[in-house]
Amino acid sequence: MKEFQLIRQIQRQTSVSSSTDNGVRLGIGDDAAVLEVAAGQHLVAATDTLNAGTHFPVDTSAHDIGYKCLAVNLSDLAAMGAIPRWALLSLSLPEADPDWVQSFTTGFMSLASVHEVTLVGGDTTSGPLSVSLTALGFIEPGRQLQRSGANPGDLLVVSGTLGGAARALDLLQADKPVTDQHLLDRPQPRVELGQALVGHASACIDISDGLLADLGHVLKASACGARVEVEKLPHAASLAGLEDAERWNYQLSGGDDYELLFTLPQKHKAMLALWSQQLDIKLSIIGEIEEGEGSRCLGPDGTVYDSQSAGFEHFSPTP
Amino acid sequence: MKEFQLIRQIQRQTSVSSSTDNGVRLGIGDDAAVLEVAAGQHLVAATDTLNAGTHFPVDTSAHDIGYKCLAVNLSDLAAMGAIPRWALLSLSLPEADPDWVQSFTTGFMSLASVHEVTLVGGDTTSGPLSVSLTALGFIEPGRQLQRSGANPGDLLVVSGTLGGAARALDLLQADKPVTDQHLLDRPQPRVELGQALVGHASACIDISDGLLADLGHVLKASACGARVEVEKLPHAASLAGLEDAERWNYQLSGGDDYELLFTLPQKHKAMLALWSQQLDIKLSIIGEIEEGEGSRCLGPDGTVYDSQSAGFEHFSPTP
Repeated sequence: MKEFQLIRQIQRQTSVSSSTDNGVRLGIGDDAAVLEVAAGQHLVAATDTLNAGTHFPVDTSAHDIGYKCLAVNLSDLAAMGAIPRWALLSLSLPEADPDWVQSFTTGFMSLASVHEVTLVGGDTTSGPLSVSLTALGFIEPGRQLQRSGANPGDLLVVSGTLGGAARALDLLQADKPVTDQHLLDRPQPRVELGQALVGHASACIDISDGLLADLGHVLKASACGARVEVEKLPHAASLAGLEDAERWNYQLSGGDDYELLFTLPQKHKAMLALWSQQLDIKLSIIGEIEEGEGSRCLGPDGTVYDSQSAGFEHFSPTP
Repeated sequence: MKEFQLIRQIQRQTSVSSSTDNGVRLGIGDDAAVLEVAAGQHLVAATDTLNAGTHFPVDTSAHDIGYKCLAVNLSDLAAMGAIPRWALLSLSLPEADPDWVQSFTTGFMSLASVHEVTLVGGDTTSGPLSVSLTALGFIEPGRQLQRSGANPGDLLVVSGTLGGAARALDLLQADKPVTDQHLLDRPQPRVELGQALVGHASACIDISDGLLADLGHVLKASACGARVEVEKLPHAASLAGLEDAERWNYQLSGGDDYELLFTLPQKHKAMLALWSQQLDIKLSIIGEIEEGEGSRCLGPDGTVYDSQSAGFEHFSPTP
């Protein structure tokens, strides 16, 4: 599904005249919207849907679905540097199963309580299993991290490890033993890191569709290119035994990791060690922003590494 | 689906200690949540999902689905007396069909432009046809209309007409000619009326599940009962030729009308004619709030009318 094109189409059709102030400080096209709810007070709003069979395997536990629907939305807020506050839930269920709902809600709360997010409303209805969540949070006016803002020379940095969620999904679907299924079912939204990046990172996005796909959004919004060094990509432990090409493929185009990808002006480089220690999180410099457009991947010998993965749909090769 | 029970269960599991102020001025259990986003500034947030085959016939036009997903959410905001402002959309589609999306968005905008609602973000994804919308608006602090607040002696008032949407759906499903299909596909959210009621109505709800079902929520939240006089119920033109019992059934338990049902202290009775004229809307006094619990319907001869409709699931008979 060409999601990006559909969103562009909706964006064109719904754009309003800028002559009146509708309070929208950042609209469609980033990880979340920024809305001026009062003078000097900016609300950040994100919405994301998880459909059974598309966003999680149909046999995923109710607990993990409850966790994940909040995680992916908090990840969107994290990518803006926002402080999460409230959530609204819309739950479509094939049948009204109280046990399922209890387990779902327990999973939801296991993450909500960590980030002090309060569920304030929602809707339950009959339909194919689907969860839509809207997360609301706050950001100081003008301080949100956006996809635009990266500049040539900025460091390209990624949190945590890559490829673990996609690897777990492949193993599950092949009926093979999975060691790191939590990377797929219970991704950790990088909420504290996002907030730490405010005032330092020049651009930020969360990795849901795969590193190169999401990097592509940053490069397009920032009108620049990037160099990615595949040997510097952090990998999930479950990728350890794989051939280089297979591992790189997971790292470059595996989805569902929900790590933050951000660009950092060189002058802030020293912050990386500090954040890494304070937040107990791995931060890897994986390349650099360059003039031009699109990303190019360099292999270990410094030559351009040409991935053929289908996950590269959004990837614009160097012209 | 026992939606009400599931919501209660989720509400219990997600309730937080009241020792910390999480800014929630009204949480789960009304038509929308009220959130203190800044000192003196209250945001009203509602979310509702429409699933194909459950909330609209599968062959409903994309245009009407786009209209209706916004209408049902604006109806929730109207029931709070809120001024709508922004919307976030989550759209699950079986296939990425640009024509469908264009028509959907045109329908959405046809209503959004009337109420100056800006679409600020969302999500499009692959899945069975489903639309989740979150609507955001504002209300003056402490002024929202709630389900609680009705008192014995208050007038019971309903806007517009009843039963038209349910009648259209029945005719559609029976492959019979439908004259008033717009009542089903393009309900009019009573946004201006809701705002006018602020400071006057003692309780308010929008009628999505049928008059008696939704009245039941008001009575439960307000801890009182009600008398409904079936002959005073306004009916859609398409019900004109029906037998009394069939017409009353549509009026009492037909869903999808999205009219406002509110309770009004007798001292404000004179406002009804004023609102009716100013907003060009029919307002009918259909009964009165009483001591006790549950609603009782009085037939034309003043005796209790006992409807057997399955739509009465939420209906608590007079004890």
